[in-house]
Amino acid sequence: MTKKDLVVLPDVQSSEDRRNLPIQRVGIKGVEAPVLVKSLGGSQHTVADVEFAVSLPGDKKGTHMSRFWTLLEGIDEPLAPVMMVGVMKDMLASLRSTGGHIRFEFPFFIEKAAPISGMKSTMNYKVVLSAEADDGKIVVTQKVTAPVTSLCPCSKEISKYGAHNQRSKLSVAAVLETNFPIEKQVKLIEECASCPVWGLLKRTDEKYVTEHAYENPKFVEDLVRDVAIRCIDEPAILAFKVEAENFESIHNHSAFAIITYDKREHS
Amino acid sequence: MTKKDLVVLPDVQSSEDRRNLPIQRVGIKGVEAPVLVKSLGGSQHTVADVEFAVSLPGDKKGTHMSRFWTLLEGIDEPLAPVMMVGVMKDMLASLRSTGGHIRFEFPFFIEKAAPISGMKSTMNYKVVLSAEADDGKIVVTQKVTAPVTSLCPCSKEISKYGAHNQRSKLSVAAVLETNFPIEKQVKLIEECASCPVWGLLKRTDEKYVTEHAYENPKFVEDLVRDVAIRCIDEPAILAFKVEAENFESIHNHSAFAIITYDKREHS
Amino acid sequence: MTKKDLVVLPDVQSSEDRRNLPIQRVGIKGVEAPVLVKSLGGSQHTVADVEFAVSLPGDKKGTHMSRFWTLLEGIDEPLAPVMMVGVMKDMLASLRSTGGHIRFEFPFFIEKAAPISGMKSTMNYKVVLSAEADDGKIVVTQKVTAPVTSLCPCSKEISKYGAHNQRSKLSVAAVLETNFPIEKQVKLIEECASCPVWGLLKRTDEKYVTEHAYENPKFVEDLVRDVAIRCIDEPAILAFKVEAENFESIHNHSAFAIITYDKREHS
Amino acid sequence: MTKKDLVVLPDVQSSEDRRNLPIQRVGIKGVEAPVLVKSLGGSQHTVADVEFAVSLPGDKKGTHMSRFWTLLEGIDEPLAPVMMVGVMKDMLASLRSTGGHIRFEFPFFIEKAAPISGMKSTMNYKVVLSAEADDGKIVVTQKVTAPVTSLCPCSKEISKYGAHNQRSKLSVAAVLETNFPIEKQVKLIEECASCPVWGLLKRTDEKYVTEHAYENPKFVEDLVRDVAIRCIDEPAILAFKVEAENFESIHNHSAFAIITYDKREHS
Repeated sequence: MTKKDLVVLPDVQSSEDRRNLPIQRVGIKGVEAPVLVKSLGGSQHTVADVEFAVSLPGDKKGTHMSRFWTLLEGIDEPLAPVMMVGVMKDMLASLRSTGGHIRFEFPFFIEKAAPISGMKSTMNYKVVLSAEADDGKIVVTQKVTAPVTSLCPCSKEISKYGAHNQRSKLSVAAVLETNFPIEKQVKLIEECASCPVWGLLKRTDEKYVTEHAYENPKFVEDLVRDVAIRCIDEPAILAFKVEAENFESIHNHSAFAIITYDKREHS
Repeated sequence: MTKKDLVVLPDVQSSEDRRNLPIQRVGIKGVEAPVLVKSLGGSQHTVADVEFAVSLPGDKKGTHMSRFWTLLEGIDEPLAPVMMVGVMKDMLASLRSTGGHIRFEFPFFIEKAAPISGMKSTMNYKVVLSAEADDGKIVVTQKVTAPVTSLCPCSKEISKYGAHNQRSKLSVAAVLETNFPIEKQVKLIEECASCPVWGLLKRTDEKYVTEHAYENPKFVEDLVRDVAIRCIDEPAILAFKVEAENFESIHNHSAFAIITYDKREHS
Repeated sequence: MTKKDLVVLPDVQSSEDRRNLPIQRVGIKGVEAPVLVKSLGGSQHTVADVEFAVSLPGDKKGTHMSRFWTLLEGIDEPLAPVMMVGVMKDMLASLRSTGGHIRFEFPFFIEKAAPISGMKSTMNYKVVLSAEADDGKIVVTQKVTAPVTSLCPCSKEISKYGAHNQRSKLSVAAVLETNFPIEKQVKLIEECASCPVWGLLKRTDEKYVTEHAYENPKFVEDLVRDVAIRCIDEPAILAFKVEAENFESIHNHSAFAIITYDKREHS
Repeated sequence: MTKKDLVVLPDVQSSEDRRNLPIQRVGIKGVEAPVLVKSLGGSQHTVADVEFAVSLPGDKKGTHMSRFWTLLEGIDEPLAPVMMVGVMKDMLASLRSTGGHIRFEFPFFIEKAAPISGMKSTMNYKVVLSAEADDGKIVVTQKVTAPVTSLCPCSKEISKYGAHNQRSKLSVAAVLETNFPIEKQVKLIEECASCPVWGLLKRTDEKYVTEHAYENPKFVEDLVRDVAIRCIDEPAILAFKVEAENFESIHNHSAFAIITYDKREHS
């Protein structure tokens, strides 16, 4: 291919559009890519599902999708909240746009010691690191979802023995202006559950988690409230959305709850 | 069970909560249920994924999840936009709440005649019928997603022969205050694609759809703009969100575009 | 379209193939269709994911995909094991093949009364009804998956109080030569769990299911063995595969177990 | 925890079972773990979904699930076919079993240069590396799935212009006794498609892939046959299963085909 070839091929996307309808978002999604993510004291390798999009003015026919790829391949530092602002600015400059979003969803791994035996195993957490830009304002959100155990207070209270419990997904999507370690966000969440979960548990550990959950019964409503209180107390978090979903062990459906909170409206 | 039993068991959910944090949404999801849906001139049987949630004031410990089930089992008319207002009012009354949402997602079936042979087959479309209430205001949205063919204008223009094409999902989420037939919303969408898709196509039909798509090349941006113009012209639609996703045949990722538009802000 | 048009269009699929490689299965999948399914004393409407495939001899270039659709649209009785033999024979005749498979996967609904309050709600179960043909022999399998509660015997035994429990999927894929009601297959499965699950449970019911599960602790190994024993005792079942998957409440992964058993090899 | 505590806790799993029903497979699944995978000239980081299972004799009540974790955490070389034999032997020894399976599913990444512009981008392929043991015999399978473009020969032949095309998934599950590079298995597959796919394509590349696909029309049957012939010619592959699925651009369902072939039965 020579420069001449490029000139010869018509650039349909750049032609004028007469429908005059702005497009809020146009981009690519479902891109799977190996990425490096900032961790406490270093970084870790993982795999992300990636989405890039920009806004398109009413008089432009199309965007240039291949530029998103150049942007993605060019990222040269571990993913973290603060560097997302730079990636967003690069994207808006490259695609000559004033709005857009960027989204990386990936599993994040933490080596955890079992509560009694101390045996180590690797736990996985789902993280979504995203940036949204509109009219020049860039907002970065770090969402961490931790699997936990929840144990029903009502079931415990009314039953002669036992209490139904189940795996729950408990998450915080935090609006941040500084880096906030994923490990710290995981800890904030896990401490609000009936009990955290682990990969490997020996019998002594199983005894501990069973009794610990029984001593800490929580409704799905309690989960989101307790996490919300921790988020309010954490200065790095400017606004947040807490979500809990209980995969009920006595039903074939989930119970869920959501709290959204913006500290800037409460100060 | 007697009344006495009920009195004996403590009602933990109804106790007072001192954290004083309102919960925006608490409810159930992942409920799978057989439902009847309003269709042109009648109704059809299908299966829905159902979600119900309400808001909970800061001083209430928990909601009463079983009441959502009573509500669901009590629905006695085919699902449609207008009746959703009634279901919402019943839910808010039953759970003594001022906000919440209701969501039914289901496949909807339309018998279509192939374009040339006229042979009939059943096409499936995904529909999400939802209602959202906040501070007494209820908004009902009917989202219809149609699979269609999109053919790339750039690929057609620059190539000696052929043009890459692929299956796309094209959807309209329409804010409605009256019933609007799903069949009509499907037609509005399909007419904006490079070509609709069918279940059964004979060779004469395949010739037609191949040539028809080639004669109607559309970028993902064209798909959302053309549908948006049709929505603007349709008086029943008060506001809308149009989304297109192309499962690109030359990539392992999707191209997508979104237009949101509220007529009440443009009049 | 006239007969003449059909003659004019070349039939590429019917041409000879010189690679001489037989194809074990060729067909369509991902077809979503409304279906009627036989139930105890009648039938019910549901929605199925459908797959049809045949074998293709080494000298034939392609199969005729549209004939699968004609077959699907022509089914005129409720789905059940015995009628699947007829559908298979029709498919093999229509596509001039000696082997193939047919698969319908659908949710099946049963109205259940809660164990103490007697309040009714609709439970959903996943069913896969399939037929496989090779060299003229047709085997029909009915797989039913029921969500249940499992409670860990080890956790109960070693802990001062409580015991971890969770939702499990417990299934039987039964080879049948007669119709066997899905409701009966569900019951066979549910009776082997620590406790069945329900849609709607009042507090008196919740007390019951909590205590009932605590009194019936089962490992994932116990679940498959207890179901297997029931299947061995059930004369209608000729061979079976039992699977259990526990969505562990103390881990972020599942425990699972499988037993396969063919009575014809044990008699 | 002291040794004494361990002795005190009863080991329920090790107790005798009187139902005398062997369990073919019992283990863990849904484990997400960071792994290192062998690549051409080195190794790469990725994330795997992991499954481990063993067979359990009829007189043993349960297996020891935590040992699977010890095994997983102890793997100290990049994943590849030959080392899987060692992992299997370790598992059977650790769990005192004679049968079982191991399964790693992960995305694998290859940097590809676009066909004309030469611009580089990272493509992702799905790989399943698995081992199965029964009665002491261990079989290792490496399955690679590549997304490709398929273009319909019938549509091309009967239409005045254009031809419907779509993304397809084309895979080979190869039984191997030596290491066989994933990159080589990808290449074998991609060369049999109407055209490979890339992440980033400039306009000159788009012209190439459009024309190249048009010049190489293939039915789903052609895809599996052409790949099968390549597998027969490749000495490293002892037996194989080839699968193709076309996400038809003119339908809302897939066409698919499967060839299974064991060279040891054809020699």
